[in-house]
Amino acid sequence: MAEDDGRLRSVDEHLASVLAGIGSMSPIEMALLDSQGLLLAENVVTEVPLPGFDNSAMDGYAVRAVDTRAASPDNPVQLPVTGDVVAGTKSRSGMGPGLSVRIMTGAPIPAGADAVIPLERTDRGVAKVTISEPVLSGECIRRAGEDLAAGAPALSAGAAIGPQQIALLAAVGRDRVLVRPRPRVIVLSTGSELIEVGQQPGFGEVPDANSYLIAAAARDAGADAYRLGIVPDDHSKLLDVLESQLLRADVLITTGGVSMGAFDVVKQALTELGTVDFVRVAMQPGRPQGFGFLGDHVPIFCLPGNPVSALVSFEIFARPAIRKLLGKRQLQRATVQAMAIERVESPVGIRQYRRGVLHREANGAYSVSFVGGPGSHLIASMASANCLVVIDEDVSEVVAGSRVTVIPLLLSQR
Amino acid sequence: MAEDDGRLRSVDEHLASVLAGIGSMSPIEMALLDSQGLLLAENVVTEVPLPGFDNSAMDGYAVRAVDTRAASPDNPVQLPVTGDVVAGTKSRSGMGPGLSVRIMTGAPIPAGADAVIPLERTDRGVAKVTISEPVLSGECIRRAGEDLAAGAPALSAGAAIGPQQIALLAAVGRDRVLVRPRPRVIVLSTGSELIEVGQQPGFGEVPDANSYLIAAAARDAGADAYRLGIVPDDHSKLLDVLESQLLRADVLITTGGVSMGAFDVVKQALTELGTVDFVRVAMQPGRPQGFGFLGDHVPIFCLPGNPVSALVSFEIFARPAIRKLLGKRQLQRATVQAMAIERVESPVGIRQYRRGVLHREANGAYSVSFVGGPGSHLIASMASANCLVVIDEDVSEVVAGSRVTVIPLLLSQR
Repeated sequence: MAEDDGRLRSVDEHLASVLAGIGSMSPIEMALLDSQGLLLAENVVTEVPLPGFDNSAMDGYAVRAVDTRAASPDNPVQLPVTGDVVAGTKSRSGMGPGLSVRIMTGAPIPAGADAVIPLERTDRGVAKVTISEPVLSGECIRRAGEDLAAGAPALSAGAAIGPQQIALLAAVGRDRVLVRPRPRVIVLSTGSELIEVGQQPGFGEVPDANSYLIAAAARDAGADAYRLGIVPDDHSKLLDVLESQLLRADVLITTGGVSMGAFDVVKQALTELGTVDFVRVAMQPGRPQGFGFLGDHVPIFCLPGNPVSALVSFEIFARPAIRKLLGKRQLQRATVQAMAIERVESPVGIRQYRRGVLHREANGAYSVSFVGGPGSHLIASMASANCLVVIDEDVSEVVAGSRVTVIPLLLSQR
Repeated sequence: MAEDDGRLRSVDEHLASVLAGIGSMSPIEMALLDSQGLLLAENVVTEVPLPGFDNSAMDGYAVRAVDTRAASPDNPVQLPVTGDVVAGTKSRSGMGPGLSVRIMTGAPIPAGADAVIPLERTDRGVAKVTISEPVLSGECIRRAGEDLAAGAPALSAGAAIGPQQIALLAAVGRDRVLVRPRPRVIVLSTGSELIEVGQQPGFGEVPDANSYLIAAAARDAGADAYRLGIVPDDHSKLLDVLESQLLRADVLITTGGVSMGAFDVVKQALTELGTVDFVRVAMQPGRPQGFGFLGDHVPIFCLPGNPVSALVSFEIFARPAIRKLLGKRQLQRATVQAMAIERVESPVGIRQYRRGVLHREANGAYSVSFVGGPGSHLIASMASANCLVVIDEDVSEVVAGSRVTVIPLLLSQR
């Protein structure tokens, strides 16, 4: 392989060249609940104060604090109860000096009252209430605007929208918000050996696992993924499929058809629709990579056809691109340092991504074992892995007990 | 409040009583891609070996290793090339001694060949190929079944289904799988003060943020959540709504209407449909809690109406229940230990959940600051928090610099 090494592109170079061509999705307005998991694309200012009006923090009695000043267990104060205020009361009630109003949590404070004494600190009287301790002015009152004043910023562009942010947006009256939407990723498989999953494979036939794998990985990365499945091994049919998908795709991903072989219908079709560079990257698995743009600047990734190569290539190049489209600042998965519990070799000059099983030890440290060897066809062992172990270009051997960088492949929680 | 302490239920007791009544969802068969994020509910055995047939790991030439034994740079071996085998070839070709066949990655190994020499290690000849080094028998051949033998277990019941597991299930021919489906969670809000989000609030009116909050939190927990919104403040209408939802709900969640007040239409309606216990839990926020079963054993959570109380109650009681329905082993969110960077007080006998902002320091340790105080109406400060800080029942004061247990509220990645 030495003769080709001069033309290998490093992983970092290839990733930089991919990301240089990717922007972020244009913002669109969306129903509030649909924005979950996305990034806000506007600065949201509240027009209303939160809370919207002074209201009671407790079930109790609205009083004037001054009327309770002399109260003590030996000398309790009795105040007539002139009515009830419940949450949902749509007009502000009033209350004269020396009186009280029974009030529910969340109900508006009557004009004239400046404190609420909780039920538990009274005799719970109905016609009059007995109070054995003074109340401070303002006690148990939630002031209008104390959480957020009218005109104050609620959330800024770029905020990640989770349940709490959805609650705040709802509270300030926003049932629609401007967000960067999920990119639509169209996933295709190429290869005349492929058959639909569920069909009985004959000799030489292979179920199309890749389009499922990459569609699932793209969803995990935050995209709306559509599995188009196996594309026809025919130049004009393939061209038709690609052209029609370009109308709706934000990203196209193919697997297969990028090896050094001569039978590459895909490459020919792509040439007619745009510019795709086929390069060899100094990584294992995942050496042959295609990336470019079709039609109106739709990015296309042509990933290798072996499932392990396809997944590693997706993780290293396509996932960061999807996250950039989403507007995320953190494009890469987080990594951890772990102790390798066995020895492996790795070719110098190549960045190797080995599948591993990451364990968290009782002391909080991580250790990692390797599964499946370097073979890029080992789909069962890939399914038993929960991480990728990164072995850098300058490392020829990882000895047992040494530290390695690990990329946990956490499942998204949903 | 002292008079009621004897009747408070601990957080752990209430959680145990909730979980005791919750099973896991009955398995259903689902299209493979829809199973992403769920747990497998069957043991999957492969009927076909993986790979399905001996095939080439490289683009190169299929040879008999014995024919290359004498090859060296000074004394290269030349073998006639009798044809091409591409991936997708549906019948097994053959090859005589002393010959070679050009072969593509993934193509079936011809009968008679026992090794592949990669293109890069040859002169890439078309009519005949020159080989300058011996090849080992078996080299660059992926053996049928070396990843998974026919009849071998592929995945076990309980396996979490992510992209790699989807790929394996596809590879063994499964386009449908038996999984525990997402529970359907129906979210309702009660309270005569509530208006639909997007309407201009008049005096005393509050936008219904809770049903958005809890629907989003339920999705984050893995449920399919449906926001029914504000239910009518009328006994027979509410009864109608609840009865019709019972037909499709796996879980019902209401917010509001569980305070100590007398205006509890919800409690009355629930009594007619099932058994719901209203208890007071030794926690802050979230003291008033309702839990029980309606109709045909559909669990219902009646959460407090303040948004912070509703979210904390959801996280502590409803989220573990949803995860139990999903069949997950880990019901609780992971916790981390962090250093409190400021002092807070907490009532003894009550488990307090404060909102916090968790930071990871450069040395990997966590620190946490508090936001929003104990007030359970502070929805804007809740939106600025990324964790809950747990202050245990026996702690009256957290001093700055001491360690506290923190529940990070990680957003699900999608």
